[in-house]
Amino acid sequence: MKKRKVYLDNLEFEKARKLLFDVLKKGDFTKTETVSVFDSLNRISSAAVTAVLSSPNHNASAMDGIAVIAENTADADDRNPLELKAGSDFKYVDTGDPVGEPWNAVIMVEDLLEANDSSVVIKSPARLWQHVRHVGEDISAGELIIPSHHKIRAVDIGAMTAGGITDVEVFKRPVVAIIPTGTEIIEDPSEMKEGKIIDSNSRMFEAMVRGAGANPLRIKPVIDDRDLIKKAFASALEQADAVILIAGSSAGTEDYSAETIASFGELLFHGIAVKPGKPAIFGRSGDKLLIGLPGYPVSGYIIFDQLVRPLLERMQGFTGTPDVFREGFLSRRIASSLEHLEFVRVKCGIVGGRMIVSPLSRGAGVTMSLVNADGILEIPQESEGYEAGSCVNIRLVRSEEEIANRLVSIGSHDLLLDIIAELLHKGGSHTGLSSTHMGSMGGVMAMRKGECHIAPSHLLDTTDGRYNDYLFKKYFKPGEAALIKGVGRTQGLIVKAGNPKGISGIKDLEGLVYINRQRGSGTRVLLDYLLQKEELDPGRIAGYEREMTTHMAVASAVKSGTADTGLGVYSAAAVNGLDFIPVGREDYDFIVRSDILGTPVLDSFIDCLKSDEFAFELQKLGGYELSRPGEIIQY
Amino acid sequence: MKKRKVYLDNLEFEKARKLLFDVLKKGDFTKTETVSVFDSLNRISSAAVTAVLSSPNHNASAMDGIAVIAENTADADDRNPLELKAGSDFKYVDTGDPVGEPWNAVIMVEDLLEANDSSVVIKSPARLWQHVRHVGEDISAGELIIPSHHKIRAVDIGAMTAGGITDVEVFKRPVVAIIPTGTEIIEDPSEMKEGKIIDSNSRMFEAMVRGAGANPLRIKPVIDDRDLIKKAFASALEQADAVILIAGSSAGTEDYSAETIASFGELLFHGIAVKPGKPAIFGRSGDKLLIGLPGYPVSGYIIFDQLVRPLLERMQGFTGTPDVFREGFLSRRIASSLEHLEFVRVKCGIVGGRMIVSPLSRGAGVTMSLVNADGILEIPQESEGYEAGSCVNIRLVRSEEEIANRLVSIGSHDLLLDIIAELLHKGGSHTGLSSTHMGSMGGVMAMRKGECHIAPSHLLDTTDGRYNDYLFKKYFKPGEAALIKGVGRTQGLIVKAGNPKGISGIKDLEGLVYINRQRGSGTRVLLDYLLQKEELDPGRIAGYEREMTTHMAVASAVKSGTADTGLGVYSAAAVNGLDFIPVGREDYDFIVRSDILGTPVLDSFIDCLKSDEFAFELQKLGGYELSRPGEIIQY
Repeated sequence: MKKRKVYLDNLEFEKARKLLFDVLKKGDFTKTETVSVFDSLNRISSAAVTAVLSSPNHNASAMDGIAVIAENTADADDRNPLELKAGSDFKYVDTGDPVGEPWNAVIMVEDLLEANDSSVVIKSPARLWQHVRHVGEDISAGELIIPSHHKIRAVDIGAMTAGGITDVEVFKRPVVAIIPTGTEIIEDPSEMKEGKIIDSNSRMFEAMVRGAGANPLRIKPVIDDRDLIKKAFASALEQADAVILIAGSSAGTEDYSAETIASFGELLFHGIAVKPGKPAIFGRSGDKLLIGLPGYPVSGYIIFDQLVRPLLERMQGFTGTPDVFREGFLSRRIASSLEHLEFVRVKCGIVGGRMIVSPLSRGAGVTMSLVNADGILEIPQESEGYEAGSCVNIRLVRSEEEIANRLVSIGSHDLLLDIIAELLHKGGSHTGLSSTHMGSMGGVMAMRKGECHIAPSHLLDTTDGRYNDYLFKKYFKPGEAALIKGVGRTQGLIVKAGNPKGISGIKDLEGLVYINRQRGSGTRVLLDYLLQKEELDPGRIAGYEREMTTHMAVASAVKSGTADTGLGVYSAAAVNGLDFIPVGREDYDFIVRSDILGTPVLDSFIDCLKSDEFAFELQKLGGYELSRPGEIIQY
Repeated sequence: MKKRKVYLDNLEFEKARKLLFDVLKKGDFTKTETVSVFDSLNRISSAAVTAVLSSPNHNASAMDGIAVIAENTADADDRNPLELKAGSDFKYVDTGDPVGEPWNAVIMVEDLLEANDSSVVIKSPARLWQHVRHVGEDISAGELIIPSHHKIRAVDIGAMTAGGITDVEVFKRPVVAIIPTGTEIIEDPSEMKEGKIIDSNSRMFEAMVRGAGANPLRIKPVIDDRDLIKKAFASALEQADAVILIAGSSAGTEDYSAETIASFGELLFHGIAVKPGKPAIFGRSGDKLLIGLPGYPVSGYIIFDQLVRPLLERMQGFTGTPDVFREGFLSRRIASSLEHLEFVRVKCGIVGGRMIVSPLSRGAGVTMSLVNADGILEIPQESEGYEAGSCVNIRLVRSEEEIANRLVSIGSHDLLLDIIAELLHKGGSHTGLSSTHMGSMGGVMAMRKGECHIAPSHLLDTTDGRYNDYLFKKYFKPGEAALIKGVGRTQGLIVKAGNPKGISGIKDLEGLVYINRQRGSGTRVLLDYLLQKEELDPGRIAGYEREMTTHMAVASAVKSGTADTGLGVYSAAAVNGLDFIPVGREDYDFIVRSDILGTPVLDSFIDCLKSDEFAFELQKLGGYELSRPGEIIQY
């Protein structure tokens, strides 16, 4: 058996953060440079900027009209109009023209009685400095334009330029080297073969480094070889202000990150009491940061977002944009261990005026949980989690407004939901669609609990063979919910291309390896109904207990050979180049909260269902029938 | 007299917006291109992206341990430990290693009873596929990763890369040519002379174009010459997807923008019923946008922000981030005309749980009102404005969290406020300081109305010569407010360098041109007190009625020669290279709401006052005395 090294620290998260911030405060991690004001957008000022010129820099006319000497107009009134001579008594000025000696007031063109090139007539005196913009009306020389440690915006560039500033001192963008490691890593997806993984982490971190205002320097992946890793590290350290080693941060046999960091500087800690992200490493070498991020993408993301980003911002004199926290209500219980602070990715939706919070997959390898996240729920180390319905505080990673403009769908999964989301995006409105796949019955239950606006459903009433209709009597009060007609779709057994096992229908399932859908999904209800009809015992079907939550996941399992077949829709088979043995047609409809009928968000959804583009896209996928999509049936 | 052309349209703002969006919808203004996923941060996807590879792409071990054939472990239990042979019965796997044929389960290293290179012993059976990450657990081939019309984030780059995507189709960034016009325009501040203006607008718009995701192409300024402007326009139009002419958009004699735009395409409208920003011009030439922006910076900013930015975003298939609106209460009455929709820049602060909204300068030339704005109040065309105390809806231009972390100061102006703001920024906390200069009495009144946290004040009790103390009995209930000691400072007459008029004190003011401070300012109270002592009649002091709101503005007026002298603090004179005739010493303190005593935000403010850095900075400015700054006196 291979040897395992002694495991890592389990440093409390707040202690880790404080330790790192203190290292930064005591060290000399910030550098400054001078850049042209014109190129300073989004840079952080390292010194206050005060105007060197006033704007306007001369007294200027605020109107089109004539510049006069106020004292000489004192006698003009209605009965004694006063004639002024061009040159000696006045000069014509346009807005912005200087009003210098001897002039000290402006009369608007509208107030001139008669006017020609050589003279004008006025009938009221001018007040001293009337209609004159004073020197410095906008900016006075010496006035503060922006403070130090300020992120420069377009208006700041305008004001600095107007104040005579051409160059501005800003904090340098730190250079951050990123070294992906791992013998299993490939860069080119066309080289994919068993055991290989595409290096996606370094690409995500490159973008995150940019997002933090720093400059990434990505190094080519290095295999799990102690010497090669150290060599790459040494070279990166010369060029960069911070070096990130990806993967190899745990304590396995081929984990060289901690050792490498320790050999180039001071290892500050190895291991933080957070989940995901425990095997993180931080060190320093002089005023450079040495970082080991975990190889699981979500673990790496959390450590970057929570610790590396703030560090990179502080290296640029920036305290960062304050986090946005909002209260919401948990749709499900979440348990968490007392061993760590946990960061749970969540989806949010505003239903019936309350923000509903649903945890996404907690797997450290599930990048899509980051893609789909609206916020992060932090479960403190001293908490064992929260009950369903608890009020929790969510750090939003998407704007509250975007969340508020979104139709929340929980229920059965179908590719057509992606098509609708797509069509909504194209429409140019802010309406979005958020889909969570919990199966049809999961959607019905979520709707009853006020957690979603719509619930896509294809639930068979085994007594009469009708779909969805029975739900309204059984689960909703009259008037509480309505049905929006969706599509008819074909369910069938997804099998390998060429159907090598010669499967012809449900009756053949015994003896095969099956891949199932989760309890409460319409497809599972259908399978159980079909098994019963064939008098097959689920206990005798291998793989019956392996549950996937989408049609696509079932198709993937068949494609990869971990299962011979699974029940699903035609499109999932077709997209994956698999064969399909139809077993029946079903109705896939949408249950909807009555209180959102007629709202703009729901109307755009219904418009999509009724659109020609939707019909066209479904035709391309195949396996769908459209009878009267978008029709509303009240119960 | 010069001729004035017929004036422009007064198109309702919403009609203008709709007209422009319709032009975009009907035309073909978007273009697409393919970029590397690695370079796609912040680009807008022009098509949905679905995974081409699953991630993981093979069944993979989720643990360090051994891969086994589940069926062959069925007999292992506590009493009958089972020995497995390496090679035939198991193979060692690390996390992430493939689990392919014939293996179909993983046993964790922790569950191995004995283990060496050739054999292991287990005491419980493995379930089929236990501790195995299935193909597609993260992403299934064919699964939607991002929809079209989506702004690509770091996590999307990670997920696309993991899903085998290397290139992504995005909307092209439109190229936007920016042509500053005006004979008075200079680029180099060292060429400043009377009548000249630095071209700051084009620099602000360059940055705003970048902020909208487009690429700016700034052209050198063109003088007010019809032919030269048209020539520059023609050349810009060839290279760009949109052309912006700055200034010359009104209807004056040298305003060529409308004529130029009409000569190169279709003039859509000239003049919108908005303030500031009325003289805006929009046109099109095929699928290119032609734009004339007003020359006043705030007017140009408003038109860009309200119309040009959304157009540029839509040219990239992006509907933009939804605006953030929040309710607040107006600190002052605002009147507005029925002739236009008005955009008023406002400062916001959260005091006693309410958001207080204070209008900033409404001048179209005041760039600093944009720099200082937290939000924009839109006063509809059909409204004549709002009374003080009205509840209004503000579109925030700064994050709500930033506003909430800010100490709101209203009252007397002193440069030391800038120093404190600076020190707070440097400290690395999120606490900010927002100062509005309304004079000492203005601050006292604002504090009584619950509009600020602190009120800097230097109000003289003319009966006993003491400062600020009398305010508490007169204006506040016991316990309602406290005093934080500030600094002693010297007031004096600011005069031109060398004191050419030989001014020696207040008694010399008659016969000179004076520049005053606004009523309610401590400096005004002091002046009036000193005039009374000298038995001078304010009515006989020229310029007594010209009011500036800051010491710096007074100094600027003296420097530019529009006044001979004005009362102010030493630092304002020194910064401007002016002379200073001291007339007295005063206390400059801070009145504070008692309910924020002890809060972190106020504590950081007090820490600043007490810091050595603060003392050092004041010493550099000169004219200040520090006795016990930061001391709290309760009343």
